[in-house]
Amino acid sequence: MDTSEKILRQAFAEKQSAVEAQGHAVRALKAAGAAKPEIDAAIESLNGLKLEKASIERQLQAAIGGGDGSLNRETFRQAVVNTLERRLFYIPSFKIYRGVAGLYDYGPPGCAVKSNVLAFWRQHFVLEENMLEVDCPCVTPEVVLKASGHVDKFTDLMVKDEKTGTCYRADHLLKDFCNEKLQKDLSISPEKAAELRHVLAVLDDLSSEQLGAKIKEYGITAPDTKNPLSDPYPFNLMFQTSIGPSGLSPGYMRPETAQGIFVNFKDLYYYNGNKLPFAAAQIGQAFRNEISPRQGLLRVREFTLAEIEHFVDPENKSHPKFSEVANLEFLMFPREEQMSGHSAKRIPLGEAVSRGIVNNETLGYFIGRVYLFLTRLGIDKDRLRFRQHLANEMAHYAADCWDAEIECSYGWIECVGIADRSAYDLRAHSEKSGVALVAQEKFLEPREVEKLVINPVKKELGLAFKGNQRMVVEALEAMNEKEALEMKATLESKEESPFYVCTLGKNVTIKKNMVTISKEIKKEHQRVFTPSVIEPSFGIGRIIFCLFEHSFYTRPSKAGDEQLNVFRFPPLVAPIKCTVFPLVQQQQYEEVAKVISQSLTTAGISHKIDITGTSIGKRYARTDELGVPFAITVDSASSVTIRERDSKDQVRVNVGEAALVVKEVTDGRQTWADVWSTFPHHSAGSAEADE
Amino acid sequence: MDTSEKILRQAFAEKQSAVEAQGHAVRALKAAGAAKPEIDAAIESLNGLKLEKASIERQLQAAIGGGDGSLNRETFRQAVVNTLERRLFYIPSFKIYRGVAGLYDYGPPGCAVKSNVLAFWRQHFVLEENMLEVDCPCVTPEVVLKASGHVDKFTDLMVKDEKTGTCYRADHLLKDFCNEKLQKDLSISPEKAAELRHVLAVLDDLSSEQLGAKIKEYGITAPDTKNPLSDPYPFNLMFQTSIGPSGLSPGYMRPETAQGIFVNFKDLYYYNGNKLPFAAAQIGQAFRNEISPRQGLLRVREFTLAEIEHFVDPENKSHPKFSEVANLEFLMFPREEQMSGHSAKRIPLGEAVSRGIVNNETLGYFIGRVYLFLTRLGIDKDRLRFRQHLANEMAHYAADCWDAEIECSYGWIECVGIADRSAYDLRAHSEKSGVALVAQEKFLEPREVEKLVINPVKKELGLAFKGNQRMVVEALEAMNEKEALEMKATLESKEESPFYVCTLGKNVTIKKNMVTISKEIKKEHQRVFTPSVIEPSFGIGRIIFCLFEHSFYTRPSKAGDEQLNVFRFPPLVAPIKCTVFPLVQQQQYEEVAKVISQSLTTAGISHKIDITGTSIGKRYARTDELGVPFAITVDSASSVTIRERDSKDQVRVNVGEAALVVKEVTDGRQTWADVWSTFPHHSAGSAEADE
Repeated sequence: MDTSEKILRQAFAEKQSAVEAQGHAVRALKAAGAAKPEIDAAIESLNGLKLEKASIERQLQAAIGGGDGSLNRETFRQAVVNTLERRLFYIPSFKIYRGVAGLYDYGPPGCAVKSNVLAFWRQHFVLEENMLEVDCPCVTPEVVLKASGHVDKFTDLMVKDEKTGTCYRADHLLKDFCNEKLQKDLSISPEKAAELRHVLAVLDDLSSEQLGAKIKEYGITAPDTKNPLSDPYPFNLMFQTSIGPSGLSPGYMRPETAQGIFVNFKDLYYYNGNKLPFAAAQIGQAFRNEISPRQGLLRVREFTLAEIEHFVDPENKSHPKFSEVANLEFLMFPREEQMSGHSAKRIPLGEAVSRGIVNNETLGYFIGRVYLFLTRLGIDKDRLRFRQHLANEMAHYAADCWDAEIECSYGWIECVGIADRSAYDLRAHSEKSGVALVAQEKFLEPREVEKLVINPVKKELGLAFKGNQRMVVEALEAMNEKEALEMKATLESKEESPFYVCTLGKNVTIKKNMVTISKEIKKEHQRVFTPSVIEPSFGIGRIIFCLFEHSFYTRPSKAGDEQLNVFRFPPLVAPIKCTVFPLVQQQQYEEVAKVISQSLTTAGISHKIDITGTSIGKRYARTDELGVPFAITVDSASSVTIRERDSKDQVRVNVGEAALVVKEVTDGRQTWADVWSTFPHHSAGSAEADE
Repeated sequence: MDTSEKILRQAFAEKQSAVEAQGHAVRALKAAGAAKPEIDAAIESLNGLKLEKASIERQLQAAIGGGDGSLNRETFRQAVVNTLERRLFYIPSFKIYRGVAGLYDYGPPGCAVKSNVLAFWRQHFVLEENMLEVDCPCVTPEVVLKASGHVDKFTDLMVKDEKTGTCYRADHLLKDFCNEKLQKDLSISPEKAAELRHVLAVLDDLSSEQLGAKIKEYGITAPDTKNPLSDPYPFNLMFQTSIGPSGLSPGYMRPETAQGIFVNFKDLYYYNGNKLPFAAAQIGQAFRNEISPRQGLLRVREFTLAEIEHFVDPENKSHPKFSEVANLEFLMFPREEQMSGHSAKRIPLGEAVSRGIVNNETLGYFIGRVYLFLTRLGIDKDRLRFRQHLANEMAHYAADCWDAEIECSYGWIECVGIADRSAYDLRAHSEKSGVALVAQEKFLEPREVEKLVINPVKKELGLAFKGNQRMVVEALEAMNEKEALEMKATLESKEESPFYVCTLGKNVTIKKNMVTISKEIKKEHQRVFTPSVIEPSFGIGRIIFCLFEHSFYTRPSKAGDEQLNVFRFPPLVAPIKCTVFPLVQQQQYEEVAKVISQSLTTAGISHKIDITGTSIGKRYARTDELGVPFAITVDSASSVTIRERDSKDQVRVNVGEAALVVKEVTDGRQTWADVWSTFPHHSAGSAEADE
């Protein structure tokens, strides 16, 4: 809570007490039958206090941002979403059956935007970086997701309405309660406000018990019915199913695409000539059975992920192409800045890596590539930041993790996660499958290496532990260097050592004759190791939603009587690149339009021809609303005009050249400025008059 | 069964009897102590008969194709599949966990082929035909698939090993039994063979009881254990799951993508300006929980479908672009030809439509477009046929249906279904959802229309049928014109009429006072109707597998000591368009290679650079096996050679031109013949010597 808010809350509480006290005083005077001037003076004083309270209230509301700001964001979002749904960019799935929460269809323009975004992703990442793209099934057997930890840990805490059985996410209810209290209840004390803010900050870390206790303490009830709620309990977010007819093979719809790559590591490493580093990539559907989906396209039950798994030697995370991105400078929000309450700031990427803010060059390289990818799509660079995970957000095995967050009407939204996951995933699948997922580095000449050698003496262990011998042997062999050296010291000093065997779940006593621990010099010809993996993971639907918001604007119609909607998509993203309009319904113009349409098809330019008699202005407005960047208007048999969406500028081009000019700008080989400086300008004459 | 086979089976059976009789005679002579010359003569005769029997056996085996032919097909398939799996075109999913039947991953080259096929599909169908592409979720609520009929009818009949519980498809077991018997048991009578062939022909029509009876009659047991089998029972092929946390909303993974389009008909029709015809399209995953998947990529549990739903006025199924495909001529296999035992024959498409073999122009147009699509991908036109469904194969509502079948080592495989599904799907969803999925045709002037009016007299019906009144009323109202006019006549002549009410499952008696049936003249301003839908549905994985087989060939290495594998993919399909090889490891060459690689990246040409010291011949062979059409070999600083995969011809091109030349041929703007006639030929000198 910043200082001004704290002071204002304090002042508001004091003023509130003063108002109450003065009100009490007025009533007392009246009851005591005091003189009218005396009563009037007291009332005047009361009114003065009320005015002061109201003034503080306004300042406080402004300080906590619960007022006009969020209202504007809601209004803006509603305008965007209305346009998107009306023009079928996306629609709730199965609408005629009243839909299913968290499932959306992309209609024609949305589907085109999505396929453009994915095609660019393939070009920008897979093709330019020579990644190995794979395509694995969504249906996944349990054993794979058991190894990855999803079966046991991919859960959210849920509470149930004790009477109706309706389910809610426990943390959402608590979060909503705290936010509502902070924004709407101005009478809470600064201490209470600080407490609520603290709850919000640690929300992700609360255990099931802690969440339950807070819900009880605050008296939170079911939002719709006000019924009491159950204690929180974990709900696994994977859609479960059964593979084959026997009912004996549980399976899940994958919650991410990454596991399909990890289990193929061995083959992919071989395909890459047994060389590191290399990256594999996958685009595909992922599924999360959200408890109560909300925020439209941002939290859905089925979505498209595009994931990269870049495998690298943990001892060498440099990247040969890092210099190509080192000079990029954009908003970064390192852990330190977040902890000390500062905001994101522009840092050159090279500096972030050299100063150790970003853990390594490869991670830095991908951060830079993600920045280029998002901004080229049309994401506003001032509303894009890379936020480092705090220690409590990161998985225990992760070396470093940055989220590309995009600001939209819902706040800052995680759209791409870029994590150095160390060797965790490959190790987990190695252990579970028994197949070694490792890489080798062959030495030019053999190296002498000091190695720890643990030799369990099986005869002695067998005598001591009988049937448990195997478990003890395995546990001894699995000790890391530190544990082994400690045991060695204990055995030498005390002849025996207590030793915890996790597969037995208890301590046993190891005697000196049961194991030899020593360091030996060995000659090694190669190093065998589990590669680290750096994983940029893209939520395509979230990126697209933010892109919609960043691209949307309105401008007055020519007559000034209404606001027209425009999406300023770059040609790369635009669902249709060009429209072809005969200015008026006339056979000659329509034939020219058809010829141009054929050239556009041949050139692979998606376009739409509109021969309705609607006014040209209306036709422009309709396609501006779809974000179509160029319109070719046929107003003669020999030449046509090409109009650019945002400037509304028009040039005049020969019929035969029109398709080519559009192709050059949509393919990015020319800019509109190039076109503008090459061709004669068409003044807002007949064609524009109508607009 | 063709005549020669019948005669041969007869002859074989007779010869078999003769051998047995003669053997018996020999034994009798020996037992009777006959003279040696007599016995020798009998033995000689026996051996003669055995030779004759062996000769007939060979002819019979050749006639039924169970001999070398299928062996060759198996060997060929094994060679293709070995190459595909070794080069990671595809691999069994989750291999390190011993895999899951019916699930496959596409590795890097397979994934690239798939994405090329899909990109071309989008260009050939969506873009060129201005289709409305949509993208709907895989998770589908039960109500949708209840309406479509999948919940009740999307089943296969299954039998269980009564001891182990292992499940099998009942029809597969019966089919395998019949085929095995026909191909391997030469002693069966021609009558028995005819019976088995009949069973194979009607296999798809057998009821659960009939299948069970045949399995019992033939004594078929579980293939692995020889245990007895259960009676057949239906198993629903959809993967079931549960949407949301309550467990109260059953859902399924969609078995096809089409339903997502049907439920959006209303919005899509509006998006298209309330005009027919229009087509919507969708590419996406579909899921079928096969009982026992086999045939590799052909029968899998998760696959990519590309589907088109072309909505059209049932009274006008002409197509404006039909003339563009009318002259195509390819293998068609109409119903009549199949019934009369003929084979597929080449028919011009225009003729097939004008003669009514193909039901309508729109269906014909799509058949033509599918032919062009498949052959441009590289499917051999002589191993592609369009087979019309027999009456018993077609859904009752379908107007006509043709499968594009491709011949591969498994036989003729359905890869694309092109069906005129009439108004079935839209009607089903209209009824279930209560939302009218209809189109309107506005008349220029109002039309007088004679309309059948059925007015049930509810009072009389209520008195007669009490609680069943509603069912009777609905059944009366649902009569078609023919039924209603028949009832009218019966009521007029006999005062009453028997009437079957399907919702009651019985006949009731309708009296004359219970309903009025009349024809009235009405003025209508528009016609409201449910559009017909013509659905081309593409199994992408099946097409790709057939493409792999049709593209594969082997040729001897230069030294002649081994057979090298080649995929003759057209550039459109090839996973990588070009490789770049420095002839020898030399810094100067490597730098040139990098410059060319950068130009190729800029031009969007997927390629691979290989700077290993491996011999150039080996490097060519490696990439021929991936189907890479062109190789640029750097053997000087100023010019390079470009080699074409199938001819192994090479031309010499300047360094700066190389990327452009490759782009022109891979984009299809030039052919290799053009390149060959433009640039100087490079004789098999240093670069080729090694090959």
